[in-house]
Parts: sequence; C-alpha cells; structure tokens
Amino acid sequence: MTSARGALILVPNTLDFGIAAEPPDVQDVLPVSVIRTAARLTHWVAENAKTTRAFLKRIDAVVPLAQPLQMLTIVELPRPPKGTRAASAADWSALLAPALRGVDLGLISEAGLPAVADPGAALVEAAHAAGIQVIALPGPSSLLLALAASGLNGQSFAFVGYLPVDAAERGARIRELEALSRRAHQTQLMIETPYRNEALLGALLAHLQPSTRLSVSCGLTMPQAFTRTDSIQGWRVKPTTLPADVPAVFALLVR
Amino acid sequence: MTSARGALILVPNTLDFGIAAEPPDVQDVLPVSVIRTAARLTHWVAENAKTTRAFLKRIDAVVPLAQPLQMLTIVELPRPPKGTRAASAADWSALLAPALRGVDLGLISEAGLPAVADPGAALVEAAHAAGIQVIALPGPSSLLLALAASGLNGQSFAFVGYLPVDAAERGARIRELEALSRRAHQTQLMIETPYRNEALLGALLAHLQPSTRLSVSCGLTMPQAFTRTDSIQGWRVKPTTLPADVPAVFALLVR
Repeated sequence: MTSARGALILVPNTLDFGIAAEPPDVQDVLPVSVIRTAARLTHWVAENAKTTRAFLKRIDAVVPLAQPLQMLTIVELPRPPKGTRAASAADWSALLAPALRGVDLGLISEAGLPAVADPGAALVEAAHAAGIQVIALPGPSSLLLALAASGLNGQSFAFVGYLPVDAAERGARIRELEALSRRAHQTQLMIETPYRNEALLGALLAHLQPSTRLSVSCGLTMPQAFTRTDSIQGWRVKPTTLPADVPAVFALLVR
Repeated sequence: MTSARGALILVPNTLDFGIAAEPPDVQDVLPVSVIRTAARLTHWVAENAKTTRAFLKRIDAVVPLAQPLQMLTIVELPRPPKGTRAASAADWSALLAPALRGVDLGLISEAGLPAVADPGAALVEAAHAAGIQVIALPGPSSLLLALAASGLNGQSFAFVGYLPVDAAERGARIRELEALSRRAHQTQLMIETPYRNEALLGALLAHLQPSTRLSVSCGLTMPQAFTRTDSIQGWRVKPTTLPADVPAVFALLVR
C-alpha cells in the first residue's frame, strides 16, 4: 500500500459454491496466509458480489476483516455474452482505479482460481498493460485436482471448457477431442453445468471408443467428493449416476 | 484406516523446491487440513525420498508427525526414461501394498500437485484399477497460478510440457504451438529446466510473431515471484533477464 501502485491480487475461492448445507471451514482448502490477505483487502472486483460477501463472512470467522463487510468496495466484473471479449479499456481502468491510486485490489471468482475457467482474464491483462503488479495466491483448482486424481496423462493436457449443447454438435466435438487426444496423447478436460452432468456423461459414453479412458471427478474438496476412472467399456458395463447439483470435471484420454 | 482398503492421498508439495535459503512457512501455501493429513500419514510413495523428508520436517514444525521421520516408510517411484510408460502392474501392486491392506498411502512429488507435470499418474491409474479410493488434496500448482496471473485465455488452455532441446526442432515446435493457439484461441503453457530459462525465452522471441502474447511467471509463491505479460514485440524492445535457478512457466496466446 506504500508503493505508487497497489497490486492486483488474485484470491482463490473455495470449490463448494456455497452448495453444502454446512459449508466446510475455509481453512480446509485455503492456506492461512491467503485467508489473512483476503481479510485485509478493502477493494474487490468479483464475478459475483453476493457470493463474495458470503466468502468474506467465512474469512471473517477465521481472521477478522480489516473493515466491516458493509464498508468494503465490491464491484462486479462486466458480463459479456459468452465467447465475446468483455468491455472497453476505459471500463478496465475504472475497475483498476484503486490499484492505480495505490490500494491493493482483490480479484475473486465464484469458485477456485480467478481467471481460470472463469471471467477475469481481461482485467488481469489490463492490469499488466497498466504496469500493475499481478499476484496469484495459491488455492484449489477443481481442474487440476481432477487431473491429478484421474491418473490420466498429467504431462500433456488441455482444458476445453464447455461442449456444445446441441446433440449433433456435441457428438462431433466429442469425436474431435478424442482424435486430438489420440494424436497428441493429451488428456482433454471439460466441465458442464451440474444439471447437465448426466447428459454429458451419456454423450461421452455414446460417442467415445470402448478403449478410451474416461475420468469423472465430482464435488472435489467437498464431503461427497469422488473420482472414477475407467474405460468407456467399463463405464458402460457398470454405470455411475452423477449428482445433478454438484460440479463435475470430465477428462478423457486415448492411450 | 478402518475400511478394508486405505486411500491413495495425493499430497501437494510447496513450489520452492527447497531452493530458498530460508524456505517459506508451509502454512503460506498449504491449507492447515493438508498439513494435518500429511502429518498423520505413515506410508508414502515419493518422486524423491530426500526432498520428501525435507518436506515432512517442515510439516513437523507446524503439526507434529504421527511417527518420527525415521519410522516412516517412503518408497520412490520407479523412474522410467522420459516418454516411456513406467514399470509393470506388479511394481504398482507392490507400491500400493499399504493401501491394499488398509493403510492410507500418501503420494507426493518434488513440487506442487503429484501426477501433474510430474510422475505418479501411472500409480494413480493402478490405484483406480485396484479399487483404491483416490483423494487429491488442494494445493498450489505453478501451472494454474501462472495461467491466472498471465491474463491470457483461461477458458481454453493446454500444457505441453517441455520443448525439444535441439534448436531446429524447438523452433518448429514453437511455430506449431503458435499455429495451434491461433486455430483454437488456446493458451499454450510450457516449462523448462531453470538453467535453460533464458535459452527458451530467446527461442520464443526469435520464432513467434510480433503480436503474439507471451507471459512468463518465475518463482511463484516465493519472495522473488513475478509475472510479465507482453507482446513479443514488447519483450523484444524491453527484455527481461530470467533467473537461472528458479522454475518458470511460459505461456503464449495468439489473439
């Protein structure tokens, strides 16, 4: 806070999305140093202000916030339509104003690391362009936990986001990802809105080759967490029903 | 420990590789729940037994180990030549023996999450095949911290490991990754042995197009951490010298 500019500090959120009836202690998933930093920040840019306030209440239970919650400045990221580039340079400057005048600014998403499988990257890039130091604090990433737990190739992998919702397009995309995985021996990771978990699993089982490996991780870091890795053939013989209210990560690999 | 089988627990390591003269407190990068779990495990499979003992000494300073360090069983992963598939099914069964007889077994690498950009995936896969529950504990990943801090596309990205050492092959691979990034608007992440950081940066500046974005993160979570993101043109005009003793992550994106 004494330097000419504040830093943009990327603060990881927990992975439970406030879904759990009894949300786990933040100390179960975040280092205490991160909790301390979150407690001292007075200015935030957030994917969602409401869930950020809920997060900060959980932080306050461990390390008292430097200012009461109502006194904090929490500004939401602009929400452009999916796939388009967000906002203008002027919008980013306005969001970065606290850092430009010397106050550290937090960036937080609804779950996990901000700017990964989440909005916020454009703000981070604008910070670099403005000469603002960017500091990413360590925290959980459902993508990398799922990859580690999958046993699939962790030396070469890609995250491809969401698959198309249209059945024909989705089938084509699944076959494309399988071909990509075969060519580069690269694990392909994807996510889905929880209520479509079963639909995506069904499509993967329908379109992938029997020997392709599929791993599904659900609710990682939550009490109901599980990871199953099996061949498509194995999944077909012995199906697992996925929960419709818990986030899942899907990973496929062709040997 | 009371169930028929123990679990395979993937324990994250810090990101400092014991490089720092004064290694940071493990509480700066690991949740206290992870520290507690690491302290109670009596059986480990490790990328490197020596660095695992150093890690457990740091754990012991925060939460006393359940057994003295000398009493712990720490077995190293087999080290196959790069790019080959490790060991046989029998080897994996031997490593998994504690879990098969009901004792929780830790898996740990030299830095960050095990089985991501690290050996260990084959052991995880063998655990799934043997019906052993796999639990990935949350911790820092230099790859995802670098991606978050880069401001490059976090909705679609790939980690491609190491680039070839041969200059001609490396140049060709860099141009291939740039073409991939352009086609899929996908951030391409890679790593290098620290003493070759400068050589890789030089090759990237020589082979990439002036408008391609390049981000370099060095020593994340360590005191000397920094991330720079700029166009290749910007890097050429104002070079940054990279340290030769600190791990770096390189990320490129074509808009």
